[in-house]
Amino acid sequence: VVAAVHAAVEDLIGERGLADLTIGEIADRAGVNPTSIYRRWGTLEALVLDVEMAAVEVRSPIPDTGSLRGDLHTYATGVAREVAGPGGLTFLRAVLALGDREDVTRSEAMRNRADRIERMMDRARERGEPAPHWTAVQDCILAPLYLRVIFGVGGLDEEFITTLVDRVLATDFG
Amino acid sequence: VVAAVHAAVEDLIGERGLADLTIGEIADRAGVNPTSIYRRWGTLEALVLDVEMAAVEVRSPIPDTGSLRGDLHTYATGVAREVAGPGGLTFLRAVLALGDREDVTRSEAMRNRADRIERMMDRARERGEPAPHWTAVQDCILAPLYLRVIFGVGGLDEEFITTLVDRVLATDFG
Repeated sequence: VVAAVHAAVEDLIGERGLADLTIGEIADRAGVNPTSIYRRWGTLEALVLDVEMAAVEVRSPIPDTGSLRGDLHTYATGVAREVAGPGGLTFLRAVLALGDREDVTRSEAMRNRADRIERMMDRARERGEPAPHWTAVQDCILAPLYLRVIFGVGGLDEEFITTLVDRVLATDFG
Repeated sequence: VVAAVHAAVEDLIGERGLADLTIGEIADRAGVNPTSIYRRWGTLEALVLDVEMAAVEVRSPIPDTGSLRGDLHTYATGVAREVAGPGGLTFLRAVLALGDREDVTRSEAMRNRADRIERMMDRARERGEPAPHWTAVQDCILAPLYLRVIFGVGGLDEEFITTLVDRVLATDFG
C-alpha cells in the first residue's frame, strides 16, 4: 500500500504539480481505499511531505565520506541540486500547507532525516573531529539555499556552497 | 486607491487568512474596481506581498543605530518577532504562490527592502566598518529564522540572534 500510494503521489505531482491534488484522486490512482490513506498519513500535506522526503533520501542520501567537511559539502551540493531542480519547492509548499505547526515536527519523514544528519555529526565526533549541533546544518546550509531559490536572489554555485560549509564548521562547538 | 486596497487586504487576511481570498472580494471591500487592482498589481500574490512588506516596514523598519552590529541585532530581533508572530508565514506563502519566480524578483516591495538593507551596509562602510554584501543578511539572518519557524526546530532566543549576527560579521568582506 505504501509503495503504491507513494508512486501515485509522485506520478500525479509530476503530471500537474500540487495544485488541486486530492486524497481521493491519489487513492484512485493507487488502487487503495481513501480510508487507508487517511488512517496512515492523516492529511494530504503529511503524505506529500513523506513522499517528497523519501525521494530526497534516494536521490541525495546523507553522505559518509570520511570527513565532516566532505560530508557537509556533499550534503550541501545535494540540497542545492534538489532545491533548484524542478519541483524543488514542493516539499516546502507541503510543509507550509500543514495547518498545524505540530504536524511538521511530528512528521516521521522529517525526524528521520534529522536523525541521519545527527548521526553524520556523531561519526565526525567519533573520528575526533569537533562537530556542532545538527541544527547548524539547517541554519547555515538548508535555510540559505532555500531562501536564495525562493527569493530568486543569489546563485547556488560552488563558491557559495563552500562558504556555507565554512559557516557550519566555524560554529561554536560548545 | 492604494491605501484603500492595502487596508482591505489587511482586514481580510486578519479576519480569515489567505485562504480563498480573491481580488474581487478585495475590490468590493476597498470600494474600487477590480480592474484597477489587476492593472496595478497583476496578481493576488503580488498584491499580498506588497501589503505584507509595507506592514513589515512600518513595524520593523531597517534600523540605523550607529554601528553595524547594533543595526544587524535590531534587524534580526524585528525579523524574529515578525516571523514568529501571527501571520508570520503569510509573506512567504504569498512569495511561494507566485507562479513565476520572475514575479518575485520583479516585486517592487522586495527590491525596496533589499535596497534599504544595502544602504544599512553602505552606512557601515562610510563609518569605516567593514560590511559584507547585503545577501549575507538574507543567508545568515532571514533564512535560518524562517526555517526554524517553518520546521518548528530550534528557538529564536537572544543567544541565537547573537549567533546569527556573529555569522554575518564573520563573512569574508572581499
